[in-house]
Amino acid sequence: MRSSLECIPCFVRQALEAGQQVCDDELLLEKVMKRILCEISGFDLSLSPPEMGQKIHRILREEMNVLDPYRQVKENASMVALSMVDNIRQLIDEQTMPFDAAVRFSIAGNILDFGLISAWDDSKIMDSFQNALEKPVDSKMIQQLKNAVHKAENVLFLADNVGETVFDKLLIEQLPDHLDVTYGVKASPVINDATEVDAVVAGIDKIARVINNGTDAPGTPLEQCSGRFKQCFRSADLIIAKGQANFETLNEVGREIYFLTQIKCPQIARYYEYEVGEWVVTTTSELRNIQVVESGSER
Amino acid sequence: MRSSLECIPCFVRQALEAGQQVCDDELLLEKVMKRILCEISGFDLSLSPPEMGQKIHRILREEMNVLDPYRQVKENASMVALSMVDNIRQLIDEQTMPFDAAVRFSIAGNILDFGLISAWDDSKIMDSFQNALEKPVDSKMIQQLKNAVHKAENVLFLADNVGETVFDKLLIEQLPDHLDVTYGVKASPVINDATEVDAVVAGIDKIARVINNGTDAPGTPLEQCSGRFKQCFRSADLIIAKGQANFETLNEVGREIYFLTQIKCPQIARYYEYEVGEWVVTTTSELRNIQVVESGSER
Repeated sequence: MRSSLECIPCFVRQALEAGQQVCDDELLLEKVMKRILCEISGFDLSLSPPEMGQKIHRILREEMNVLDPYRQVKENASMVALSMVDNIRQLIDEQTMPFDAAVRFSIAGNILDFGLISAWDDSKIMDSFQNALEKPVDSKMIQQLKNAVHKAENVLFLADNVGETVFDKLLIEQLPDHLDVTYGVKASPVINDATEVDAVVAGIDKIARVINNGTDAPGTPLEQCSGRFKQCFRSADLIIAKGQANFETLNEVGREIYFLTQIKCPQIARYYEYEVGEWVVTTTSELRNIQVVESGSER
Repeated sequence: MRSSLECIPCFVRQALEAGQQVCDDELLLEKVMKRILCEISGFDLSLSPPEMGQKIHRILREEMNVLDPYRQVKENASMVALSMVDNIRQLIDEQTMPFDAAVRFSIAGNILDFGLISAWDDSKIMDSFQNALEKPVDSKMIQQLKNAVHKAENVLFLADNVGETVFDKLLIEQLPDHLDVTYGVKASPVINDATEVDAVVAGIDKIARVINNGTDAPGTPLEQCSGRFKQCFRSADLIIAKGQANFETLNEVGREIYFLTQIKCPQIARYYEYEVGEWVVTTTSELRNIQVVESGSER
């Protein structure tokens, strides 16, 4: 999806909050912010918001001379997630519909996002997991996904954040045994998005093939991805994409994709008649229908 | 006061909201926003936030080719204020401490600010006036101001927003008869700040001399003001400055000034230990004391 005018102040706020998370040198932050303002002033709004995020975080890393400013945040997120995983696996196994429960906890894990929400907030994070089984989620879409995983022979599962990965593993554990699973991550650090090493920390390499997409972009901007990743994307029977940045970069792609995400952006919420904070299971084709119903022509 | 890093995302948000209030051409807004981002990227943060607001609103007016984009907003604010003024004057006159009440309604009028708060919100506006007599305001400072107006021979009253002017008039009516009152406004439109014509609409010219400060800046950046205004500023026994932009441009000036404002900015709130939404009567010397108490050296 293209960026909107409303993305502009949001980019700027995110950039400052991200900078402040990793740096307390006001003069350096001023320099960084001014460079980022220039970058945004030249940004092509026909590109997706994660592509702007990519540019902003490249500047942050370069100016601060740190390859992975979110390393500590990611370690915390992994630690918190791993401390919960055994209890939640048991809880999932106790449910009458464990696949449904696993989908819910995978979406619950999407709270561990430090792009849109900069600061670590224990109560928000715990709230997301404690209410996972009660949160309204479209049960028809979960059933449709369940049918799809049974029909498919191979699935490409696109990761979002570190820590969330741990709960994605619980969902992968609920997939049928015959299914060949590839878990797609980023090639190098951007915000707290998962890379190959983070997938290993979550133990995903034990139950799936891990592949990086060749980029340092949030989401999955296909034009930037490696040939190997694009081949994997094209040949997958089924794609499950986690998180809002994957939603923003893939929602208009010409193939069926399942999106599992928490809605964090008021623009996306308005566009698709979601609420901010809503938990969504949807597909590219369902999203096209929402658009057609709402506008009659184009939105 | 200097601008802070936190002003940057706030400037950008205000610029977009202001643009959207007066224009629905997305392409023009994109052009305007990109120009404003460039402008902010070159901004000297040692200047005050209103000086950035001045630059932003100059760009908005120029690109949209409108001399006074807030004309309609100002007409609405005047109409609403004038519809209330007789009842509120009567209410003030009925109080045992009418000066105190008039100070409160003058601060209540400061809700009519469309710089920081872009959209007209009836409930917020009504709430401000309905709670004027109950709002916590430092009564010692009101008494100190009352003593000061009795001692002074001439007062310079610095206006903020259109509509608020109507309630400033009610406060001016409570000043002692001997006092020579000058009401300072902007030379030309910026946001919904009062100019000479707006002071006349409020009827202030009937009870005070109206003078413009020579600028199109929110607040009162003295270096930009006309010689005539600066002369008036220097020779005033007493200065009463309304609103946050006057606070931001005059809080460190080397003379006593009374500030009457609602606190709208989290940065100012943090710096002076106010709450956002608090109603403040303070002076330059009291502000210096707060700083000294809090930091020991400098903040």
